[in-house]
Parts: sequence; C-alpha cells; structure tokens
Amino acid sequence: MNFLSIIEKKKHNIELSENEVLFLVNGFLTNKIKDYQMSSFLMAVYFKGMTTNELYYLTKAMINSGSTYTLEGVEGPLADKHSTGGVGDKTSLIYGPLVAKYGVKVAKISGRGLGKTGGTIDKLESCTGWNSQLSENQFIESVNKVGISIIGQSKNIVPADKILYSLRDVTGTVDSIPLIASSIMSKKLAIRTSSIILDVKVGKGAFMQTIDEAMELANAMVEIGALFKRDVSVILTNMNYPLGSCIGNALEVKEAWNTLNGKGTSDLIELTTLAAAITLLDNKIFENLDIAIKALKNTLKDGSASKFLKDFIENQSGDFNKILNYEKNFTTKYEHKVYAQNSGYLEFNSDNFGFLSMNLGAGREHKDDVIDFSAGIVLNKSHSEYVKNGDLLFTMFTNKDDEQSFREYATKCYYIKDKPNNEKLILKVISKNYNL
Amino acid sequence: MNFLSIIEKKKHNIELSENEVLFLVNGFLTNKIKDYQMSSFLMAVYFKGMTTNELYYLTKAMINSGSTYTLEGVEGPLADKHSTGGVGDKTSLIYGPLVAKYGVKVAKISGRGLGKTGGTIDKLESCTGWNSQLSENQFIESVNKVGISIIGQSKNIVPADKILYSLRDVTGTVDSIPLIASSIMSKKLAIRTSSIILDVKVGKGAFMQTIDEAMELANAMVEIGALFKRDVSVILTNMNYPLGSCIGNALEVKEAWNTLNGKGTSDLIELTTLAAAITLLDNKIFENLDIAIKALKNTLKDGSASKFLKDFIENQSGDFNKILNYEKNFTTKYEHKVYAQNSGYLEFNSDNFGFLSMNLGAGREHKDDVIDFSAGIVLNKSHSEYVKNGDLLFTMFTNKDDEQSFREYATKCYYIKDKPNNEKLILKVISKNYNL
Repeated sequence: MNFLSIIEKKKHNIELSENEVLFLVNGFLTNKIKDYQMSSFLMAVYFKGMTTNELYYLTKAMINSGSTYTLEGVEGPLADKHSTGGVGDKTSLIYGPLVAKYGVKVAKISGRGLGKTGGTIDKLESCTGWNSQLSENQFIESVNKVGISIIGQSKNIVPADKILYSLRDVTGTVDSIPLIASSIMSKKLAIRTSSIILDVKVGKGAFMQTIDEAMELANAMVEIGALFKRDVSVILTNMNYPLGSCIGNALEVKEAWNTLNGKGTSDLIELTTLAAAITLLDNKIFENLDIAIKALKNTLKDGSASKFLKDFIENQSGDFNKILNYEKNFTTKYEHKVYAQNSGYLEFNSDNFGFLSMNLGAGREHKDDVIDFSAGIVLNKSHSEYVKNGDLLFTMFTNKDDEQSFREYATKCYYIKDKPNNEKLILKVISKNYNL
Repeated sequence: MNFLSIIEKKKHNIELSENEVLFLVNGFLTNKIKDYQMSSFLMAVYFKGMTTNELYYLTKAMINSGSTYTLEGVEGPLADKHSTGGVGDKTSLIYGPLVAKYGVKVAKISGRGLGKTGGTIDKLESCTGWNSQLSENQFIESVNKVGISIIGQSKNIVPADKILYSLRDVTGTVDSIPLIASSIMSKKLAIRTSSIILDVKVGKGAFMQTIDEAMELANAMVEIGALFKRDVSVILTNMNYPLGSCIGNALEVKEAWNTLNGKGTSDLIELTTLAAAITLLDNKIFENLDIAIKALKNTLKDGSASKFLKDFIENQSGDFNKILNYEKNFTTKYEHKVYAQNSGYLEFNSDNFGFLSMNLGAGREHKDDVIDFSAGIVLNKSHSEYVKNGDLLFTMFTNKDDEQSFREYATKCYYIKDKPNNEKLILKVISKNYNL
C-alpha cells in the first residue's frame, strides 16, 4: 500500500478499502503522508466525492485518532445539537434549557467563532469566569447536576479533524460535502448520546448556499449516523436573514435569556421549539410533534426553562449576573443608529450583517483576534417587515472609532423593496419521527 | 489576489488571468505559495484542465522562471527533437546525424532515464568522458563545429518545471495533459530553434496508454507552440513493442551507429527517416516528404551521416572507440539466452522489457542508482515475427547474479500467439507540411 496507488484509485472512482483510508489518516497524523500529498488527495475528494463505505471508514478513522467520551456516568437520555454556523444563531442556548426541562440532558462540544460566524463558546465567555475546559469527569458531573454542559473543543477529541481542517482551510478544499460531513459527524460521534439534531443553515449567511447542497450534506450526515447506529435528525433552516434580533456575544446570551422568559422573536421560537420537540420525540418524551411544540412554546412563555441556562452557566463558573444586569455591564463607547431612507418591505442580508458584526468587534477576522463581548447589532425591525421612511432599523454597538466605515457597511446589510420576501425559516426536516 | 480566490476559480472553470498564473508560479518558486497549496491546485488542474490562455500563461511563466538560450551565434537552421520516452528509443542519435548531414543543426537538451525509460544522456555517457555540461557558448561552438550538440538539463533552464515536477511526482498529479504539455514545451521553447519535432509514444511501454490521450497531448503541445509562434510537428508512435533490436545504454549507441551504417531494423529506419524528413521539410531543405524519406534512407545505406554521430560524441570528449570496439569494451559477466517454448507469432510487451532492462542494470529504479552501461537486452527476433519452438528470442546481458528472477521476468516480456499482431509503428503525424 502506498500513497500514489491510493490517490490513483480516488482519481479513477475505485472505492478505497478501510485499510487504505486508515493508512491515509494515520499516515498524515504521523507525518508519513506529507501535507502536500494529503491536500492533493483532499482536492481529488472534492471532485470525486466519497462512497458510503469510504465515508464510514474516514469518520471511524477520525474518531479513533483521539479519545472518545462514553459519558457512562450520565443518567437518562442525552442529546447533542449542532449548527453548521449562522449569523445571530443562539439556538443552542435556548434548545438546551428546553430539553433539559423535560428530562433530556445535553452534553455538547462547541467551537469558537471565525469570520462572519459566531461561536457558542465565545458567547458564553461573555459571562466572566465561564470555563469551557472541563475534564470528562467534570463534564459528566455538570450534566448530571444541572442537565446541561457545554465544553470547548479538546485537542484529544478527533485530533485528525483539527489538522485536516487546518489544511483544508488553506488549500481550497473546505467546501467538499463528504469532508464537511465526516468532520462534523466524527466530533458528534466521539461523544455517546441518545440523539443528535443537526441544524444545517442554508443561504447568504451560511456555508451551504443552496437547498440542494444543504440536502446533500444533510443526507451524508444522516447516512454516517446510520452507519454508526445513531439517530440523527436534521433541520434545514434559512440563513438569508439573521436569526432573532441580536448579533453579538453578550447580546445573544441576553436574547436567549429573554426568549426563555417569554420575550423571544417568532423565528427564534419556531426554530428552538421545533429542534427541541424533535429531540423530545427521539427520546420518547412526547409522541406527537405538534403537542410537543405546543408544550415547549408554553414553557418559553412561563419561563420555567430559563433557570437551566442560568444554572448551567453558573455551574461552569460564569457570572450570569452580568447578563441579568446587562445595561450596566455591557456598555459601549458608541451606539450608531441606522434609519430607513424610504418606505417598503425590509430585506436583510445576513452575510453582510455577519461581517459587520465582526468589524464592530463581536467576531474574529483572524484566529487570535480578541473579541469585544459588548459589541454587536440589535435589529429593531425584522426581515420582510413593512417599514416607513425614518424608522429605526437597527443599532450598532461598538467601542471602535470607525463610524463612517460601519455606516457604509451597514447600507449593504438591508434593502427596502416593494414586496415582502416571505421566505420560510424551516426549509426541510429529516427525522425518523417527523419529516417535512 | 490570493491563493484561495485562484483555486476557487480553477475549481469552478473560471479562466485564470496571466497575473494569477504568474502569482502561482512565482509564489511557489519563492515559497509564498506552499507545496501543499500548489499540489491542491495541480489536482484541480488534473480534473478541470486548462484553457488555451492558461496553457500559454503557464508555459510562459515557466520559461521566464529561468534562463533561455537564444543561441544567436548558431548559423543556419536549428532543429530540436523530443520523445516522451520509450523502451529502446535511440531515435535522437540517428535523427541528429541525419538532419545535420542535410545542413540542419541540432541543439538539444536531454534527460536521464528513470524506471523503465532510458535517457539519451545516460546512453551517451557510455562513451567514457562524454560531457553533458556545456556552457551556452560551448553549446553554440559545438553546434557550429559538428552540427549537433546535446547537453543535460541545466538548473538554470525552466527551474519552475523541476520543482513542479518533483511535487507532481509524489502527489498523483503527473498524468495531467496540460501539465505534461507545458512541462515539455517550456523546456523546448526556452531554446531558440527553427523547428521542433515531438515523438509522442503510445502504448504499453509509454506514458500515454491510448491514442486519444496521446492526441490530446499532441494537440496541446502544437497549440502551445503556435501561441509562441513556433513550428511544432508531432509523430505519434506505437510503444507496445521496443524500438529497434537493442535496449540498454552502450547497446543503443552501437545500434544507432549500425543504423547510420546501413544495418538498422526496419522500424527504426521508418521512424528516424520520417522524423528527419519532417524536419527537413520544415526547414525547406526538401519540398516533398517521400523524396526526403527516400534520400534519407539512402543516406542510412551509404553511411555518410554516421560520422556526425562520432564527431559529435568526440567533440564533447566522449571515447567513441569504445563503441567501435564494442565486444572488447562492454563485456558482461552473464549472457542469458531466452528461447521460444513453442511456435507462433511473437508479441512483445515493451513495458516489461523496460523494467527487465532496468533490473539487469541498464536503468535506474531510484534517482541516484548507478547505471551499468554494458547491461541490456538484444532482441534476436522482432515483434509480429513467426518463430519456431527453440528459436533464440532475445539475450539478456548483465553483471548481476540473479538469473532466476531475470528469467522469470523475461517470460512476461513476450507471448507467442496464433496470429501476427501487425500493429503500425507510425500512428499519426501532425505537421504543417504533412499530415497522416
């Protein structure tokens, strides 16, 4: 077995054996296969794809490149949720408390944000002291104690993914469905859970630009889940406009808290209750989706799940009072208000909102940039809403002195049109218990 | 401009600009573009090909990565010939003297052999003292003095090709038509000549396995030539069987000498006189191909071009007497004779003959292996010839003690069949003066 014979097979659509895939992954980890060879292989995969067997072998080799969390000590059903990354996506912070309230525990590994996309770990760190680095035992204890624990990426979990992703990032091989699917799924499958729900974002602010691409990714991930005998549900959601009314770190934690206390926007309520309902069906807490959603909407209204968010953050040493006294703790030097210049139906561009938020200080352009937790955007109007000339559309919060460039960028974040763009939020659901 | 935007264009069939191609080639030479990025780009080219403009930009960038030989001091027409590499291919050593005899000078850069394919420089070095390292001035003086000069690859000529090829060699990106075409043509175009003839080998012993692939390569090379306003003719020749009757280094020089003295095999005579005739037509020495070929065949018969081979080798300090007294100078420890085990029509496998010759000591398995000039194979019968049980088919000459494995390998070099395989040698000719 050697690298050249393997790459010839991939070039000519001949299925690789498990040993060949292992040879590639382990060879790359031990530097026997060089980065310039692996990048050539990854580009061949971009063009030729992977068979179901190859996807299985690759995901398995990635999982086995590091430790796995069996979480044996966790009692009761255990759910995991993952989003492919969007703008204003604080879903996990609402989903977690919702399912925990109904007895399904959440054990989740999250990432940091880069570019236009925020990261759950960054958002949680706006609660000073919040600790993302727990040992497996601390992770188990936290889940058992408060029903939810979220930790940061560990270098011991799927180390092959980390180095493969770094290489893909600089070689034009990021946007390959099998590589994305195996990257996401290896990290999900490295943790034992009773159900997994994936939120695949589609549109301008997302990695997947079209429903076809997103469906391909969704199917690949469900396929991998099935190969590992794990229940995977997928929701395809529209990312042409930001989710909810806040973009930023502390801002999004506050919005999650408000949503859990009956003050959420309709899109955020729709997505979080659907995701939570599917998990509750998967774990046999409910038998009917509509009944589950109705119950969950009531739970949002009565605020009874909100304590799970507070308890979870405080249990990992985060200062949740900072959020409860938001105005005092997250002031910014500037608040730039953007007003409508004419009347009509509002159309947002979430891609540009993502980059605007990054520029305001809420995101990272480069991996080692420092985040300003108080920076971000509050939307005063929503996508498709009719606005009048002079209406306040959104407010930019920043500590940076660059008003002119922010205002210029802000003009690219919205259009005012003659007709409303009534795009649906939920585009597709793939689940063994419910299909849309 | 950055690497990622360029590779996205290539992935999505958007033509690269000249600046983008220059950015890639120069960036790679200066290590600003990393090898793992270039290999990913090369694999994308394998799948997406290159447009005519891109081929032009790449070839130009490669040529301009180093020195060019204008050979201003050379008087009269100047031809170059290149073969894509075959087994038993000593064509250049016969072609050169033939065209020199008719007043067309030959200035050629040749390579060394690797694997099953021999190299002209290695063959010439069997004449002890022969020097492949001439300065440009010495090169010009040699061409003017004896009509022919052949030198080895210089690190100053197309250095980008050398490092690109090394990368392609280990990343599965060798067999890309545009990359092969620009690699060959950049080295040809770096030397000013009045005509170029390319011998593209097709079949078992060659890099191009099918006529379609070979035609694609031929057309790409003619296209590049036209972009640089240079006359390029191509002959596609059958490499399913070895060319001539000898495979090895000193053996092939001797066969070239014999052919130039009226004792050549019919296939070698056919190919060398055709190639030389096309060059003589390109340079207006003859106006009719058939008349040129007839004259060249007579030249082979009367031996009048042979002195050009001797003079050229001696002018570059080679001891040609070693070839003239072959039996004395190139004895081997062993001569293993292979006999027919039954009767029928002989069919050779040149691929296996190439590797057998390498194993006998005549070629290199690895770049730094030392060549045994006296090792090789003499064919006593030819491809498609009727042989009787017990006939001597070929003789293996070697200094290595491994008779059993040589004999085993020898059985893979031929078949004896019920019907003759009357494959043509010349498959196709592309030339402005003559087309087949």
